[in-house]
Amino acid sequence: MDSEIRKKRMADITITVLKADKTPLINQEVIIAQTKHKFLFGTAAFDLVPLTNDEYGGKKREQAEERANKLLSLFNAVTLPFYWARFEPQRGKPMTGQLKQAAQWCIDHHLTVKGHPLCWHTLTADWLLSMNNSEILQAQTARIRREVLDFRGLIEMWDVINEAVIMPSFDKYDNGITRLCREMGRINTIKAMFDAARAENPSAILSLNDFDVSLAYDVLVEGCREAGIKIDAIGIQSHMHQGYWGAEKTLKILDRFSRFNLPIHFTETTLVSGNLMPPEIVDLNDYKVEEWPTTPEGEERQAREAIQHYKTLFAHPLVEGITWWDLSDGGWLNAPAGLIRKDGTSKPAYDGLLKLVKEEWWMSPTKLTTDSNGEIQFSGFLGEYELTHEREQRTLIFNEAGAFKTEVHF
Amino acid sequence: MDSEIRKKRMADITITVLKADKTPLINQEVIIAQTKHKFLFGTAAFDLVPLTNDEYGGKKREQAEERANKLLSLFNAVTLPFYWARFEPQRGKPMTGQLKQAAQWCIDHHLTVKGHPLCWHTLTADWLLSMNNSEILQAQTARIRREVLDFRGLIEMWDVINEAVIMPSFDKYDNGITRLCREMGRINTIKAMFDAARAENPSAILSLNDFDVSLAYDVLVEGCREAGIKIDAIGIQSHMHQGYWGAEKTLKILDRFSRFNLPIHFTETTLVSGNLMPPEIVDLNDYKVEEWPTTPEGEERQAREAIQHYKTLFAHPLVEGITWWDLSDGGWLNAPAGLIRKDGTSKPAYDGLLKLVKEEWWMSPTKLTTDSNGEIQFSGFLGEYELTHEREQRTLIFNEAGAFKTEVHF
Repeated sequence: MDSEIRKKRMADITITVLKADKTPLINQEVIIAQTKHKFLFGTAAFDLVPLTNDEYGGKKREQAEERANKLLSLFNAVTLPFYWARFEPQRGKPMTGQLKQAAQWCIDHHLTVKGHPLCWHTLTADWLLSMNNSEILQAQTARIRREVLDFRGLIEMWDVINEAVIMPSFDKYDNGITRLCREMGRINTIKAMFDAARAENPSAILSLNDFDVSLAYDVLVEGCREAGIKIDAIGIQSHMHQGYWGAEKTLKILDRFSRFNLPIHFTETTLVSGNLMPPEIVDLNDYKVEEWPTTPEGEERQAREAIQHYKTLFAHPLVEGITWWDLSDGGWLNAPAGLIRKDGTSKPAYDGLLKLVKEEWWMSPTKLTTDSNGEIQFSGFLGEYELTHEREQRTLIFNEAGAFKTEVHF
Repeated sequence: MDSEIRKKRMADITITVLKADKTPLINQEVIIAQTKHKFLFGTAAFDLVPLTNDEYGGKKREQAEERANKLLSLFNAVTLPFYWARFEPQRGKPMTGQLKQAAQWCIDHHLTVKGHPLCWHTLTADWLLSMNNSEILQAQTARIRREVLDFRGLIEMWDVINEAVIMPSFDKYDNGITRLCREMGRINTIKAMFDAARAENPSAILSLNDFDVSLAYDVLVEGCREAGIKIDAIGIQSHMHQGYWGAEKTLKILDRFSRFNLPIHFTETTLVSGNLMPPEIVDLNDYKVEEWPTTPEGEERQAREAIQHYKTLFAHPLVEGITWWDLSDGGWLNAPAGLIRKDGTSKPAYDGLLKLVKEEWWMSPTKLTTDSNGEIQFSGFLGEYELTHEREQRTLIFNEAGAFKTEVHF
């Protein structure tokens, strides 16, 4: 697997360092340092919204800032929440301002932001219930157009539709989106939502996202393709509250979706550092516990599995990002799924991933000496780099694996 | 449920019986008798091929004839085998003659014939393996065109493609159709096969058929619809070797597929009259037993469940047919799934279904007396009837539920 990672994720770079007069800089020391991964190492970071909107005070603020610092050390991408029920609980009063504040903070901190989700039957606006299907469609597409337009420049990546496989047959409670999807069908619903998003931001990365990793999702992606819907990324959830899938299942799923030759995003990755959820639970939301503590053995297991999961995915050429779901314990389902404990300390999984992402797969500042042609050579993981010579800096971006040759002028 | 059956499956018929001079036949006795159901009560009847081709001798022939008689007493439709590996084991030497013989026998005995299947990754021709995908596609569509054309007039109903949900990811062994489907995708494969069949017989009833009754099949049907493929019937297998689904699961599946408002055929219905197959078996073909005996308790259970299954399906307005899989024990998997034991005697399920189909849901010859307007009135199950007056007979067909008025001339 390591050789796959090397082959797919690294570039062999030759840089000719030139002086202002365009002659080579010979036998001089320069420093090369990676500053960002191309690969999206992301996390759900919903508490950035209250933090960046000054809704935390005192100790809570301090803790949130600490979490944000830990986030910035490890990750280069975040998912911000756009659940309609929470984003616009009262029709016409969306939380656009607060979310813009959070998104701007992310941009300022060099984080790629994804908005999640624009259409979902769960946590959709309950005020849709008084509408007929044609009004629901109108309201839902208008909502998408509004958000995509409002956040253009801040958010260029959206989970457009969430869990469409089950959408028309979801039967836990009545909701406007299931009604709509039952009438229109999944593919027409997806098409309408993608069209709305695309209309307002043609260059955005628009993805499907699903927890269903069975053949049903495979068939759905195929159905969308044949219906001419341009999907930019296949989003795969991997909430492993009931236990790590293992590399074999993960590879099988990757193989299934590789047929489409589309980028794959692991959008919601969870591994708990406590007891596993019992296997008989079908809908994870049905599992309610008062306490779900993190344990030392659980933390060791979580670290081991997280590292294996990231290595498996990073080695696959179509995977472009992994998002950890809930940076900190106590989020969804109150699960100990965080990389950080409730007290703000790091778990072994955090340390392990940090080592992987920022040491093993990373080029720390490294001194190199240009040769008699002014050249330096190194192998580095794809992403952004900074080349420093006598306090002057140049930014370089390497986005393609393999041999690459360029010039830099000081 | 009985009221649903009444509403969906019966017509309230008024017939004005006229004499040759067009005056009403008043106060005369006539006999009305149902001769055929509109609903397809079918069975797999693969042994009709050797029987009608004189391949059985002596005792074997006698037994096969007895089975055929039992078939004719209960059923009005049969499925004949077109598994490519068996139909054309040597390229260019198809069993067209033998199958025509069997199909003609069926037509002569007023049975509707379905051919099964035209494209399937299992039991496909192994000589496809030496071809490239473009040659496989050519051979497969040519095969479909040939069969559909050769059997036009005999077979007007085809399972065009079998088990497409799993087709591209089937991994038990290499085969030409999985290769093709992995490259083309399910929907394009289905389209190519339907196009080939449609080209040779535009009025044939062409169906998808699948054992997968999960959301994946639902999504596939939707994908086909959005890709403009005209599916005439959704074929649902129900091999219940591991236990009867029960009405609740059956209704849930029916509800799921009702969204498409297409005819539904229950194409392969199995209930065993012996021990159930263990639940951990995923692919039924993996279950190999030397002996799988029918038992008295098993036969009672099978009869009870078969009747409930038929009642559940007959009550649903979109279901147009049920095919029992293996009329006699010892067929697929050597399972005691027959309605007839190996010794040729009927099981309680046979008797129970016969009572249902040919008594409870059937009008036996019934004397009626025309009134002063020459009218008779009765309620009957949809299908074909014979009206007899003084040894003269007229055929009547009632295909729509509800009130219906017609005239008959003697």
